Amino acid sequence: MKQFMDRDFLLTTDTARHLYHDVASTLPIIDYHCHVPPREIAEDRRCSNITELWLGGDHYKWRAIRSAGVPERYITGDASDYEKFRAYASVMPRLIGNPLYHWTHLELRRYFDCDFILSPETCDEIWKLTADALAKDEYSVKNIIRRSNVDVICTTDDPADTLEYHEAISKDDTFATKVYPAWRPDKGVNIEAAGFGDYIKKLGTAAGVDIVDLESLFEAYRRRFDFFAAHGCRVADHGFDIYPTFVEPDLYHADLIFKNALKSNGSVTDMHDVCLYKTEMMRFFGSEYVKRGWAMQIHFGVLRNPNSRMFARLGPDTGFDTIGDTVPMKTLAALCNYLDSNDALPRTLLYPIAPQQNAAVAALCGSFQTSGDGFPHMMQGSAWWFADTLDGMRTQMTTLASLSVFGEFLGMLTDSRSFTSYPRHEYFRRILCDIVGGWVESGLYPSGEEADKIVADISYYNAKKYFKF
Amino acid sequence: MKQFMDRDFLLTTDTARHLYHDVASTLPIIDYHCHVPPREIAEDRRCSNITELWLGGDHYKWRAIRSAGVPERYITGDASDYEKFRAYASVMPRLIGNPLYHWTHLELRRYFDCDFILSPETCDEIWKLTADALAKDEYSVKNIIRRSNVDVICTTDDPADTLEYHEAISKDDTFATKVYPAWRPDKGVNIEAAGFGDYIKKLGTAAGVDIVDLESLFEAYRRRFDFFAAHGCRVADHGFDIYPTFVEPDLYHADLIFKNALKSNGSVTDMHDVCLYKTEMMRFFGSEYVKRGWAMQIHFGVLRNPNSRMFARLGPDTGFDTIGDTVPMKTLAALCNYLDSNDALPRTLLYPIAPQQNAAVAALCGSFQTSGDGFPHMMQGSAWWFADTLDGMRTQMTTLASLSVFGEFLGMLTDSRSFTSYPRHEYFRRILCDIVGGWVESGLYPSGEEADKIVADISYYNAKKYFKF
Amino acid sequence: MKQFMDRDFLLTTDTARHLYHDVASTLPIIDYHCHVPPREIAEDRRCSNITELWLGGDHYKWRAIRSAGVPERYITGDASDYEKFRAYASVMPRLIGNPLYHWTHLELRRYFDCDFILSPETCDEIWKLTADALAKDEYSVKNIIRRSNVDVICTTDDPADTLEYHEAISKDDTFATKVYPAWRPDKGVNIEAAGFGDYIKKLGTAAGVDIVDLESLFEAYRRRFDFFAAHGCRVADHGFDIYPTFVEPDLYHADLIFKNALKSNGSVTDMHDVCLYKTEMMRFFGSEYVKRGWAMQIHFGVLRNPNSRMFARLGPDTGFDTIGDTVPMKTLAALCNYLDSNDALPRTLLYPIAPQQNAAVAALCGSFQTSGDGFPHMMQGSAWWFADTLDGMRTQMTTLASLSVFGEFLGMLTDSRSFTSYPRHEYFRRILCDIVGGWVESGLYPSGEEADKIVADISYYNAKKYFKF
Repeated sequence: MKQFMDRDFLLTTDTARHLYHDVASTLPIIDYHCHVPPREIAEDRRCSNITELWLGGDHYKWRAIRSAGVPERYITGDASDYEKFRAYASVMPRLIGNPLYHWTHLELRRYFDCDFILSPETCDEIWKLTADALAKDEYSVKNIIRRSNVDVICTTDDPADTLEYHEAISKDDTFATKVYPAWRPDKGVNIEAAGFGDYIKKLGTAAGVDIVDLESLFEAYRRRFDFFAAHGCRVADHGFDIYPTFVEPDLYHADLIFKNALKSNGSVTDMHDVCLYKTEMMRFFGSEYVKRGWAMQIHFGVLRNPNSRMFARLGPDTGFDTIGDTVPMKTLAALCNYLDSNDALPRTLLYPIAPQQNAAVAALCGSFQTSGDGFPHMMQGSAWWFADTLDGMRTQMTTLASLSVFGEFLGMLTDSRSFTSYPRHEYFRRILCDIVGGWVESGLYPSGEEADKIVADISYYNAKKYFKF
Repeated sequence: MKQFMDRDFLLTTDTARHLYHDVASTLPIIDYHCHVPPREIAEDRRCSNITELWLGGDHYKWRAIRSAGVPERYITGDASDYEKFRAYASVMPRLIGNPLYHWTHLELRRYFDCDFILSPETCDEIWKLTADALAKDEYSVKNIIRRSNVDVICTTDDPADTLEYHEAISKDDTFATKVYPAWRPDKGVNIEAAGFGDYIKKLGTAAGVDIVDLESLFEAYRRRFDFFAAHGCRVADHGFDIYPTFVEPDLYHADLIFKNALKSNGSVTDMHDVCLYKTEMMRFFGSEYVKRGWAMQIHFGVLRNPNSRMFARLGPDTGFDTIGDTVPMKTLAALCNYLDSNDALPRTLLYPIAPQQNAAVAALCGSFQTSGDGFPHMMQGSAWWFADTLDGMRTQMTTLASLSVFGEFLGMLTDSRSFTSYPRHEYFRRILCDIVGGWVESGLYPSGEEADKIVADISYYNAKKYFKF
Repeated sequence: MKQFMDRDFLLTTDTARHLYHDVASTLPIIDYHCHVPPREIAEDRRCSNITELWLGGDHYKWRAIRSAGVPERYITGDASDYEKFRAYASVMPRLIGNPLYHWTHLELRRYFDCDFILSPETCDEIWKLTADALAKDEYSVKNIIRRSNVDVICTTDDPADTLEYHEAISKDDTFATKVYPAWRPDKGVNIEAAGFGDYIKKLGTAAGVDIVDLESLFEAYRRRFDFFAAHGCRVADHGFDIYPTFVEPDLYHADLIFKNALKSNGSVTDMHDVCLYKTEMMRFFGSEYVKRGWAMQIHFGVLRNPNSRMFARLGPDTGFDTIGDTVPMKTLAALCNYLDSNDALPRTLLYPIAPQQNAAVAALCGSFQTSGDGFPHMMQGSAWWFADTLDGMRTQMTTLASLSVFGEFLGMLTDSRSFTSYPRHEYFRRILCDIVGGWVESGLYPSGEEADKIVADISYYNAKKYFKF
């Protein structure tokens, strides 16, 4: 029997152990998509206890605690921080087979040098031990990032953002990690959302443009593109909430729809109009990304806020979102084709939320590989959200390898709101090494330098080159 | 090489063997969803041969024999019982990898102490051996259930049922197994079905209510709820044949639609009306379940009776149903949300038929976990029907663990029409122990009492507590 | 560590090795569905270099090279043959986990006795070595087929085809492999395609019938059926590009639609009309197949030509097709039922492109098994195209076994355009033997003659009997 989460955690063959320990483990981290707040880096925030660090905003954990029947008071309510940690500790032993089980214990080990197993029995000791640690300077946000060997962080930012914290971070010479903004323009795309007009006003103010039509909207965005680029941005990210059918846009109608939306502040209800406007915006953004050499990420298929009672009480991003219906491949392909035909298909990463779409999405990417610039033009991204699990990652990687050029895979990102989530890269790399090691050990791929190189590339170098970090 | 189906069948590690032999194997069975006829228990029926026992009504087996090209005469036709058994024996060796192969041999071993391999060569010997056994008292239905260590059986019953056999069973002091009815009101929901009006009349008669509108329908159901509750019922079960879109109901229109359906005896063809009525009924049932503390099961996604030629000849439940299209998650989420917003979401178990919906359904359950009563409020049920296989169960369990709190899983049920199907619980438990044992042995979960407890809970205690048996 | 692709490649247990080496490896090949050009067999074509052999028309390889960012010039463009081979060699090491990696090295081993690993380093040596070999007589198409131990090849042919090359091949007494045409009438079904009328004219000319309505169309087809039958044809194949809903046809309307399509040369745009016509044609073809004892294959779910820019440049079948949306099971079931109810459901093989439909398709076949002629009437075909991978085949086989009578499975076909693709049968058989061997070794199936027989049947005998070769 292997010891629980020992040095060779997840590494089941000699080659896997070699690949991890000798190749992957020491490479820096490029976290090219996450949701950590740049302000907390700039201010070098410190947490006063483990609840603040772990349970302050992590809706993965909230969801898990809730799923065990724990009252909301101990999750997002007015219970004390200690009570909330105890609630998490009480659920932990039941989370067998859940990635939270491994993430939690990896974080205890890597950041607190603690190999206790979290449970009601160890709860108090861990509470104290982590509180003592967090009181020290080495547990400030910057120091946590430093010890995590993070080369690049891309945060997720609205085009109207001031980027003041990115500015501040870049001026700290003692902090080597590059923290770049990533462009997330969903609020200007979701024309059906209440408050759309307010958002456009905010964007106009940020850009110094009076936005009254598509032309001025584009002008405002172009100024913000320049501003983001000046802060090192080179990655965009789109979340597609709805996209039932592909509608080919024309500038004239998109402009009309946009102007009506400004008047009504976002009450566009006609689905055809919504789709038309969104496609036009994707064309605009895509063409800008192409010109600027940015990569585009698309995350799609989530069903957001399905529980209206809890949404009214807690708002978005509180652990109620779920896996939606699969996005029609016909629509997705039509969108890619439309962009490609209009010089508006940049390097693109697709992230489906539904695991059964892995194969179709990996295959679709193969239909738009015509850059000839030495890089895959489109690729499936790493297993995302509900699929970011042991089996989910294994399946995503073996499926991608079956249908694509796995050696070019861009590898892991945390997608996290937490500063202690970097061990998820370790988790990913161990799984990667075990897959590649397994192939080598079972005679499916030759042993040697090429296997080492593939692991190193997927762990670090591919992302570095693809995004030009 | 391991011996065929030996003591350690399916148990590939020491920990798996420990978990099964020392923890799971001796726990009683709670079969909280099945289709055995209570009459046969009450009458303590005996079968005169293995064909009666195995091939009298088991459409899983019929389907398999048919799939090998055997003429219908030997399946549901006028061939002799011996000829039918021979047909099954002749197909058996070709059923490699099919759960029937294991179920069949588990039943031979556990009930007949026979370790022959069923084939044309052993057919006659097994025919004789089982006939000799079945002639004995110990092979009466009650005795089979007794030796199977069954604590609770929930049958599947129409609200109009007299429950006379449940009554009779409960009066037999020599029979310790509790046999409760489960509430399956589909016939009052499927307003589009021919004969709907006739059914409502039957229900009215059973309830002593003249059903002329929704109000009197609800009154009739409430009386039947009381009657079922008095017989120990605490679980309901719904089969959703069609549910393309969510339609929010209102009592006024639901009442109109219902009254029209009574007049036309079930020829409601307008899909919007059908959906509206069904949602209203789900709201009504849900609110009653909440009040009474019953749990609700929903089985969905089956395509029933696709072969009209054979349906005309043999009727329903004869082995022609199949896996239908995946139910839209948007619709399913909207239904759950509607119920939740109307105090009509009881403890709920969801059973998708399509295995590719495992992840989405397991995730959806996490969006409605707000009871805070110490139990998961919604859960995915055990792998169902076409997914109730070795790989199907493995996939369902590892997916559930990835996305939920596996320690709270309710575990197995037979869903069977046969009294010798209890070894399916053994089959499930062996797979469960192998999964958990594998996690422990490979260092993914600590060895020790918690792992034992999780296996015991999923095998028995979780269902006992959740359903309050 | 196992050596890379050694004698026991993919065979992980003693039983697997026994099954492959002693049972499967020496059986002849029946390649009942492929796209090799009969002309090249008849003319006993020879390739002058490895690029001609491997990269002349294989869009699987084009797609892979493109996906690594290689310029189109080195794929389908004007680069030299050597440069193209070098491009493939340069991508090869990155194709870890892709079936191309194994196919390529199997072909080098089996046809060129070369155990080099293809890479930029070995590129020149392999280029020379294969050129030397290809210059020899033993590398003519017929000799390659001879040494591949191929019993039967079914090509894919249009009903208007002259079959002159099949005729020529059959007259060569020195060539023992039977090369039969397979009936692929898609061009007469796809009434919405531009040029439909032209095609019908061509068909009429081939049949010697003036086609003016459905009656004369059927007459023309019947003559071509006779002609194909005289050349040994007994398998048909249909590719379903679109089939959103089932439309029950009637001869009167189908005839009107057909006559209008003749006038407009294929600009039928009404989806209802398209579906109605197609269903009528499926009924006609199905009834003919039933009468003639032919088997029908249906390949469905592909999204063809999604990249319009590259389609305009390179045309179809150049590596841009992808996995489309899953075909509605309701529609597919309705089609099967319609055919079954009209004596028009022949022995049928279904090939879904989307791997998540494996279970539903395997299950659906079980709903139409009523021939009672000793053979499964409907079956899922081998893992197809994007699923024809190591994991794809494993999943397809274990799913099929779970849901059907695996012992009757028809096994592998290449679906290939290349004469050196026969090692894909070896690849399949090794995987098959490893699955069956694994079941035996782990006590899930008894060791012995039955397991041997199942492997032999799936490798060869089932197809021989099912198609009556």
